[in-house]
Amino acid sequence: MITPKTLKGTRDFSQADMAKRNYVRDTIRGVFESFGYDPIETPAIEYAETILGKYGEEGDKLTYSFEDNGGRKIALRYDQTVPFARYFAANYGALTIPFKRYEINRVWRADKPQKGRYREFYQCDVDIIGTESIVAEVELAKIVYTSFKKLNIQKFCIKINDRSLLNDVLEKAEISNEDRVKCIRVIDKLDKIGYAKIVDELKDLGLMDSQIKILDILFKTEGTNREKIQQFNGFATKNIIEFLDYIEGTDLENYISFEPTLARGMDYYTGIIFETVIPETGLGSVAGGGRYANLCAAFTKQQFSGVGIGIGFDRIIDALEILDLFQNTKTNAEVLVTLFDEKLKTETLKIADSLREAGINTEQYFQTDKLSKQLKYADRRGVGFVVIYGFDEKENESVMLKNMQSGKTKTIPLNKITEIVKEVKK
Amino acid sequence: MITPKTLKGTRDFSQADMAKRNYVRDTIRGVFESFGYDPIETPAIEYAETILGKYGEEGDKLTYSFEDNGGRKIALRYDQTVPFARYFAANYGALTIPFKRYEINRVWRADKPQKGRYREFYQCDVDIIGTESIVAEVELAKIVYTSFKKLNIQKFCIKINDRSLLNDVLEKAEISNEDRVKCIRVIDKLDKIGYAKIVDELKDLGLMDSQIKILDILFKTEGTNREKIQQFNGFATKNIIEFLDYIEGTDLENYISFEPTLARGMDYYTGIIFETVIPETGLGSVAGGGRYANLCAAFTKQQFSGVGIGIGFDRIIDALEILDLFQNTKTNAEVLVTLFDEKLKTETLKIADSLREAGINTEQYFQTDKLSKQLKYADRRGVGFVVIYGFDEKENESVMLKNMQSGKTKTIPLNKITEIVKEVKK
Repeated sequence: MITPKTLKGTRDFSQADMAKRNYVRDTIRGVFESFGYDPIETPAIEYAETILGKYGEEGDKLTYSFEDNGGRKIALRYDQTVPFARYFAANYGALTIPFKRYEINRVWRADKPQKGRYREFYQCDVDIIGTESIVAEVELAKIVYTSFKKLNIQKFCIKINDRSLLNDVLEKAEISNEDRVKCIRVIDKLDKIGYAKIVDELKDLGLMDSQIKILDILFKTEGTNREKIQQFNGFATKNIIEFLDYIEGTDLENYISFEPTLARGMDYYTGIIFETVIPETGLGSVAGGGRYANLCAAFTKQQFSGVGIGIGFDRIIDALEILDLFQNTKTNAEVLVTLFDEKLKTETLKIADSLREAGINTEQYFQTDKLSKQLKYADRRGVGFVVIYGFDEKENESVMLKNMQSGKTKTIPLNKITEIVKEVKK
Repeated sequence: MITPKTLKGTRDFSQADMAKRNYVRDTIRGVFESFGYDPIETPAIEYAETILGKYGEEGDKLTYSFEDNGGRKIALRYDQTVPFARYFAANYGALTIPFKRYEINRVWRADKPQKGRYREFYQCDVDIIGTESIVAEVELAKIVYTSFKKLNIQKFCIKINDRSLLNDVLEKAEISNEDRVKCIRVIDKLDKIGYAKIVDELKDLGLMDSQIKILDILFKTEGTNREKIQQFNGFATKNIIEFLDYIEGTDLENYISFEPTLARGMDYYTGIIFETVIPETGLGSVAGGGRYANLCAAFTKQQFSGVGIGIGFDRIIDALEILDLFQNTKTNAEVLVTLFDEKLKTETLKIADSLREAGINTEQYFQTDKLSKQLKYADRRGVGFVVIYGFDEKENESVMLKNMQSGKTKTIPLNKITEIVKEVKK
């Protein structure tokens, strides 16, 4: 006998879980499509060489890879972006450029499982490739904004920064290329350790006071987004200003926060970057992304600028749970049709068929149990209405409709059976 | 530089592929839900012991399994039924019984790739567990029937048989338990090799004429389903007769064919079995399943009878392709909004927003290219309408709507922009 258990970091999703997950997925998919994005899908398994070496040493360690029976080195995908780059590099000659796509699917990481971190989880990605226009960045911010609004999340903040602005500041502070990564890692910690400690750590890296003074602008800008970017006069402010111009006067503007120290770890972003938080939830970033100057570098010599954003599906589920924003985790079944006697069976099944034809999700009870047992089943399943068809009803050419919430019953003639729609759908 | 290629037997799905696949998936999902089924989802990766040993020696060979960094033996799931049995065995105390579920998801087999056979493919499964009622079998046949009808497949045949009837015939022919599997394997080949060769092969197995004479009933019944089952008088006909009673007088009856030699390979079915073909397509079985007396045997001592059916998603895609039943492989985008000048940008983006709010999937052009280039992009993308907003339109407080198919244009005032809905959705 084998113990029926799942691997740590993977999960079974019950009917109630799936009601939530499908609601979120369908909502996000709807937003992506409202912006004219189409889905593509790439395989879960790829040649290991496609996946490995793209996410740094740590990423390689967290990639599930193995040899198949034919000696091929195979990996489970670590994210959807590298397979997308692989797809684009193989097909760009046949695609409309700029090329936009979305994908909502599973990825795997051999990570240490902990609260909110899984070995198998979903990503919802939108990417645009083949344009350098800031309109693309604006659109992605708008997609995140619209998704969150549609999910009824009221308070959230889309933080933006520009890696080229950050680099420009570091360059003007005459920080060498080797030290830049270390510096960015320190700068990114402002929220966590505060300004004083940042200065200490920068000094530990060997920075002189004059250099730190130039970096100070990153920590000390204040005011609105417009006011902040004006304080960077003389630096590479073009991208951020253009972004702010595009959203001027829109509601989206209220959700955008220009954060000069935002760095998004050591990812290979080269332009505008995003990170979205829902402060009330205490969760980390729930959506992030940015611009890569050369997305397909590993697969083709041709250079393509890309910009993308990923919504952390499982984090969003957690957030909606915390904010108590899931309304409906009920079964899809709207009506249960009872079954009483072998002699009623053909007619009973026909009643169920006609309800389905009328657009009602209709479950058929399978056995000729007594009414109380059938009603108990309907109750446990959470079905809202039960259609009862016994010998009395057969004689009266009718069914009895029971509202499981109010307990009220109503007789409905068989030739007016579709009137049940009015009761069920209201 | 890494060659951007997929593993043999896995596929990238383009926008056009996905339009087809989502149409089929959404249709089947809709049918499953109309019968009151809810989805569950189990992981793609499981402990190897959960998967191995469930599908015979061949199945084990075709299972992708490997060791993770922690030394755990892991397997990619081979189908959705065994993980479902594992889920049910772990959770049945908390579930409503009979328990019904559907799952539409990927599975993997390290099989030799060939036309119509993939290493990564989708299954669409519905299963019912915890009832022995034939109503369950009738419902599954009806689900296949309804799915095919909704997909506009006109000609198909749901073959049914009963393994307990087949076993009864073999038992009455006094065929030993060891020989039974070999016999069934021969009997199952009627369609391929014909009656005369069947007899030869049965003789080769050592069967006597008197035994073959009893088996003859499997090959020689003729007429309607009712007439055929009557010829089995004295054998275990209860299940088939009950099934036929339930569908009497329904349209489904016209699609059911009782085939006494149908065996469904060596699967562990114990009762009614199904196999569905679309003869015109020349494809093999596109949907199959049946009843298992003890679905969770590997995971719990508790015995649960289950019945399930799987629709071969990729086979259905192939069938619809052959039958030319895909109508719409277009982009989700309904309108493209042009972009002309930095000075128009904020207003242009607002126009796109208001179209989206009106329920139109609206794509925004990203760069200030000349009109002909933007129209060419819309054409290549397959977007039906283009909204043009230039300086002339700004002055007239209007936009120009171009129907890409007819080439006709129409001026629409900005304050009546939602009138575009009428044009686009008609």
